[in-house]
Amino acid sequence: MVPIISVVGKSDSGKTTLIEKLVKELKGRGYRVGTVKHDYHGFEVDKEGKDSWRHGQAGADTVAISSPTKLALIKKVEGEIPLKELGGLFFEDVDIVLTEGYKSGPMPKIEVHRATLGPELLCTKKEDRLIAVASDEGLAMDVPCFHIDDVTSLADYIEGRYLKKKAKGERKGGARVELSVNGRRIPIKGFVQDTIRATVLGLISTLKGTQEARRVELSIEEEE
Amino acid sequence: MVPIISVVGKSDSGKTTLIEKLVKELKGRGYRVGTVKHDYHGFEVDKEGKDSWRHGQAGADTVAISSPTKLALIKKVEGEIPLKELGGLFFEDVDIVLTEGYKSGPMPKIEVHRATLGPELLCTKKEDRLIAVASDEGLAMDVPCFHIDDVTSLADYIEGRYLKKKAKGERKGGARVELSVNGRRIPIKGFVQDTIRATVLGLISTLKGTQEARRVELSIEEEE
Repeated sequence: MVPIISVVGKSDSGKTTLIEKLVKELKGRGYRVGTVKHDYHGFEVDKEGKDSWRHGQAGADTVAISSPTKLALIKKVEGEIPLKELGGLFFEDVDIVLTEGYKSGPMPKIEVHRATLGPELLCTKKEDRLIAVASDEGLAMDVPCFHIDDVTSLADYIEGRYLKKKAKGERKGGARVELSVNGRRIPIKGFVQDTIRATVLGLISTLKGTQEARRVELSIEEEE
Repeated sequence: MVPIISVVGKSDSGKTTLIEKLVKELKGRGYRVGTVKHDYHGFEVDKEGKDSWRHGQAGADTVAISSPTKLALIKKVEGEIPLKELGGLFFEDVDIVLTEGYKSGPMPKIEVHRATLGPELLCTKKEDRLIAVASDEGLAMDVPCFHIDDVTSLADYIEGRYLKKKAKGERKGGARVELSVNGRRIPIKGFVQDTIRATVLGLISTLKGTQEARRVELSIEEEE
């Protein structure tokens, strides 16, 4: 699973700005970075009148716009897709995902804090999974507290905790993927092996009993 | 694989309008429908200044916006993703995909034609895979020619050719999916079986030797 970290904080604490800085810093270190913005109320992304917008208005469940440099996808859903599932479905080609929001979500969290917004943090319970604070004032905490502008140190911390393991081979080349179709072995390149592995592990990750999967066997047999 | 049909035609022939009507008609018949708009030049979907837009500007490779009713995904790509792969990755939960454009693509095509735009069609060669024409004038063709406003008949034709098979059980309940993790059998519900099967078949569909897969066996073994 791709590591997912939620950046949370009160309104106007500077979540988007911190994410911008972290994305730039991590990209500068050579990582592929994804982000998720949590939206509670529904949103409009596509521009009124555009062909793709008209497809959606006509009732299409999923609309894609595909170009040589960018792909956009707009999908109607029945209830929010859990972060873990989002990670497995759409983010298996990045090294880390930062989310803006999801303060009630299950992922480890960095809280952005400003003295002017009051002394209490949002994340106070153990189950909040607070791993760090980015603050404009010093705080006595059980978790590391970085200055809100010291993105280098915060990125070091994230890298050490969530990204170095991968560099040691946790994901790349760390598994053997074998495929046979109609009884015949199909050769698969390393990159495709990685994709198949990541997608399948993502897919099954929400099923009970699939945690710490070391060996996965999947068979699909069409009925006559 | 989800069936993908490309709606092509000269500029101003009415491709978007035909797709709108087809989407409405097929949705009205109970199908889940996806669409893809082919964009040659790059495009902007997200709105300048929005948090998610800022994530993308900062360099994020994939940006998602997730709400209880809609998911948007904006992904940087290096070169256009082929339609078949798009289908496998993002459209396995719909019954059919209509694309606007892709006249040089590999999918079966419906050409939208208007007398005022000249007598020639875009699709004249066998490899264009023309399956129907929607036209405002009668044409003597090897393939069915529907009046441009007769969307009911065109939808009947699409349904008969691409969707009925599924209703007969080609996809739903048509396969047995078995999963074991670390040697232990994991029970999977029908819906999840369908998702796993569709995703895995989509994933491997671009590999040589996977056509007409009746039995797929996949194993993933983590190296120590």
